[in-house]
Amino acid sequence: MDHGTSGALPAPVRAGVPEHGRVPKYYLVAARLEELLGELGPGGRLPTEADLAARYGVARATVRQALRDLLVAGRLRRRGRGTVVAGAKIEQPLSLASYTEGVTRQGLRPGRTLIALDRQPADPANAERLAVPVGEPLWHLERVLHADEERVGLESTYLPVARLPELAAEFDPAGSLYGHLRERGVRLAGAEERIETVLATPREALLIGTPPALPMLLLHRRSRDADGRPLELVRTLYRGDRFSFTLDLTAPTTD
Amino acid sequence: MDHGTSGALPAPVRAGVPEHGRVPKYYLVAARLEELLGELGPGGRLPTEADLAARYGVARATVRQALRDLLVAGRLRRRGRGTVVAGAKIEQPLSLASYTEGVTRQGLRPGRTLIALDRQPADPANAERLAVPVGEPLWHLERVLHADEERVGLESTYLPVARLPELAAEFDPAGSLYGHLRERGVRLAGAEERIETVLATPREALLIGTPPALPMLLLHRRSRDADGRPLELVRTLYRGDRFSFTLDLTAPTTD
Repeated sequence: MDHGTSGALPAPVRAGVPEHGRVPKYYLVAARLEELLGELGPGGRLPTEADLAARYGVARATVRQALRDLLVAGRLRRRGRGTVVAGAKIEQPLSLASYTEGVTRQGLRPGRTLIALDRQPADPANAERLAVPVGEPLWHLERVLHADEERVGLESTYLPVARLPELAAEFDPAGSLYGHLRERGVRLAGAEERIETVLATPREALLIGTPPALPMLLLHRRSRDADGRPLELVRTLYRGDRFSFTLDLTAPTTD
Repeated sequence: MDHGTSGALPAPVRAGVPEHGRVPKYYLVAARLEELLGELGPGGRLPTEADLAARYGVARATVRQALRDLLVAGRLRRRGRGTVVAGAKIEQPLSLASYTEGVTRQGLRPGRTLIALDRQPADPANAERLAVPVGEPLWHLERVLHADEERVGLESTYLPVARLPELAAEFDPAGSLYGHLRERGVRLAGAEERIETVLATPREALLIGTPPALPMLLLHRRSRDADGRPLELVRTLYRGDRFSFTLDLTAPTTD
């Protein structure tokens, strides 16, 4: 392999070159590392920082910055004290299907850990969004989402106690809330969603087990029942290095 | 206003507290700043770093880290040499509507600057996704997206030259490609989309005018015509601090 600084750069480096500028050194190292990841394949263990610095003839700090970029991009994962090549991101369909259905479809085992299930009076913002009076009792359900053994997200749900009075007594918090709703005859007819990218707060990063600077995908959902009444508010934070969302659009057949 | 370190913390700080841990100091400052932003309102100009450090009794480095978080979160924007309170994120509907339609609906003036319009032979990956032979001539169109005067994204499109042979001669690259397709009788019938969060490459950051560490929303689209044939591949990078995506889901009426 050519480790010189002259000659043709590999395509990922060329794609990163400012038209007028120089390639940052860490970016060049990241592109070399991408080649190495391809050779190692998912699960393959990376050489140490020191070995990589020697191999590419750069400072360890440069290797560290390149590795950080590849971690944030979801190309690497920490495993124990080492670093391994990551598999593809989990593709979560943007549909009314639950997290359980989305993750199971990827051949992974979904799981949830309960952080909180309590009753709270609706604050003005939640009351308006749920079309209930301020102070109306709401269930607040907060759970960490797992895929296989890995923590991958954090979900916070508010729904009026009056809609599911027995939730605390009857619901298995490791299971699917939508499955529970279906069993009780509550049908989800639609939802508005909004997607953005955010950095996790320190508390969120701690609960999910990620560095605080990791970009996350944040999905806000307000779902409604068959009568069009708001049913729940959901705020789900997904690890940006582990998830992507997919959807299929069809044009309205108006002609 | 109480600037002491004891007593009840404002809600955003409490929400950020690790269950077992301390609140990082910059996070506390960010929460105080959130209050200040609310008072100043969108477009309001922030005091200097030195003033803020004095006001909150912390080091300038702490203020800087808090400001960086609020910038990444889209709560602040640089304007000239100062910093102002940002307005709400632009909500781009996930639909077959074009960027022009989405941004216009928000009361902003969409614009595009041409970076490249050239012909390239299809590489194996693009050939497979577009269902054309490897080496088939493709248009490659790359444009910076604007909202009012601000650069907010970067869009790269591939489509077979055979579908629109006169594109380079007839298309105004500041305009809507979908509008151009409609005028030529090419109807978009659907699209698969995938959304993820990524960090901009140095080249992308330069073209959009953002710091390279800013999280971006990346939308991949493969659209198809009325016969179900793939029509184009699009990769659009949106500033994560300026955009969110919205969609409305409806349950299939199968019961």
